Amino acid sequence: MSPTNDRPIGVFDSGMGGLTVMRALRARLPHERFIYLGDTARLPYGTKSADTVSRYAVQCARALAAHDVKLLVVACNTASAVALPALGAALAPTPVIGVVEAGAEAAVAAAPNGRIAVIATEGTVKGGAYPRAIHTSAPKARVVQQACPLFVALAEEGIGDGEIAELVVRRYLNPLFATHGKPDCLLLGCTHYPVLAKAIARVAGAGVIIVDSAQTTAAATARLLSERGLDRTSASIAAPIFLVTDAPERFARVGEIFLGAKIDPGAVQLVDL
Amino acid sequence: MSPTNDRPIGVFDSGMGGLTVMRALRARLPHERFIYLGDTARLPYGTKSADTVSRYAVQCARALAAHDVKLLVVACNTASAVALPALGAALAPTPVIGVVEAGAEAAVAAAPNGRIAVIATEGTVKGGAYPRAIHTSAPKARVVQQACPLFVALAEEGIGDGEIAELVVRRYLNPLFATHGKPDCLLLGCTHYPVLAKAIARVAGAGVIIVDSAQTTAAATARLLSERGLDRTSASIAAPIFLVTDAPERFARVGEIFLGAKIDPGAVQLVDL
Repeated sequence: MSPTNDRPIGVFDSGMGGLTVMRALRARLPHERFIYLGDTARLPYGTKSADTVSRYAVQCARALAAHDVKLLVVACNTASAVALPALGAALAPTPVIGVVEAGAEAAVAAAPNGRIAVIATEGTVKGGAYPRAIHTSAPKARVVQQACPLFVALAEEGIGDGEIAELVVRRYLNPLFATHGKPDCLLLGCTHYPVLAKAIARVAGAGVIIVDSAQTTAAATARLLSERGLDRTSASIAAPIFLVTDAPERFARVGEIFLGAKIDPGAVQLVDL
Repeated sequence: MSPTNDRPIGVFDSGMGGLTVMRALRARLPHERFIYLGDTARLPYGTKSADTVSRYAVQCARALAAHDVKLLVVACNTASAVALPALGAALAPTPVIGVVEAGAEAAVAAAPNGRIAVIATEGTVKGGAYPRAIHTSAPKARVVQQACPLFVALAEEGIGDGEIAELVVRRYLNPLFATHGKPDCLLLGCTHYPVLAKAIARVAGAGVIIVDSAQTTAAATARLLSERGLDRTSASIAAPIFLVTDAPERFARVGEIFLGAKIDPGAVQLVDL
């Protein structure tokens, strides 16, 4: 057993989108150790039922718990939206942080007069976790939602900007803006979406604040570590470990788009859940 | 146990794309009974490793065998490409037909002087099953391949034609044509791709014959039934049964794009594999 504060932070996602959260975490907490699990055999979670997502998420969390993590970051919006209570119960007393609460908080902070548009996968939109989390701290916020299923496929093809990206962004956002007007804040409720941030910002226009939850999740993680006295004190930098349930080679190759850094294929291990 | 020839034909796919094959089968064999299994909890297969696909496919085939099928049609290109031997062994003596052989045959018939381009998922392209199947009957055929990962997402969004569809088709086909020249035959090696057939045909141009394997799979199935004396003799029309591993409501709604007919949500059953 490692000394308490030297244990790694576990980060979990259905695939590689969560690497945008891992990127923010590493930038904010460069001396922490990280272990990332991508459930690539069973992605995408966004089109699956709440029961299935919850069952898969708990399996993933247990696999990370076996690596003695001191805290679990649920970087998958779909899993955060439907499985957070189950994950908290399965890992207790290890604390669990989900991207949904962090993203909702940032959106409320960005739009105090409360017109917030959430874009996310079908599963996250249907689950309604973002409107619920936003209304907890801002009961009068006017929240609208839009599923953008093609964004994930575009991001994984590395099509983050250009003619195709912009046309697809317009296809989803223009009808939303036409019906509800432009929001004060547009919340990217899927970890893949930051890859399309430029095209999204251009279509949204200058008056709309874009919030993605990766940054605020990193801030919430830093706060919790400090509160619980769990900050890693060693100054040595540890290379992250990656676990995937399928196709490690593809994860290393495509994952770089999301992590913004090279992934050593040798650091990606195949696990069976 | 039903009388031998009254038993249903099982059709299996990773999701709903195989409904394009089911559509061709029902048109060709209107008096047969059909039971379709879509492994929607674990789709897509196209990005998964051969071992994982093979394991999942055998589980699906066994679930259909429990419904006493007289023949199994593997409508999933990825599973046909990597799991056909395992499926044949698991279901013996029930015959198994895969879309790959049928598609390869049709491509060879369409392009006797043998310049064939295969477009498919990453997994199918990597597995190389189409070039292998084509070279079995036409050893001198010149075969090139191109993965088109965005086509599946477009088809499932119902974006079969228009500006976005055509731009995405050009993105994949133009570099292929620029490098290898235009083929005599373009083989649609994924069951989702017929949804994009119009845009594909326009980009390919009039000189290129488009082959999709659904039609030839239906013809091969009719031939095999007749050879084995398995044709259903009852003239009554039986409604198809659908089994899915997740999200039956979405299957019924989006599946209509592929089946070309209404799907009664009450006829879609959730199964656990």
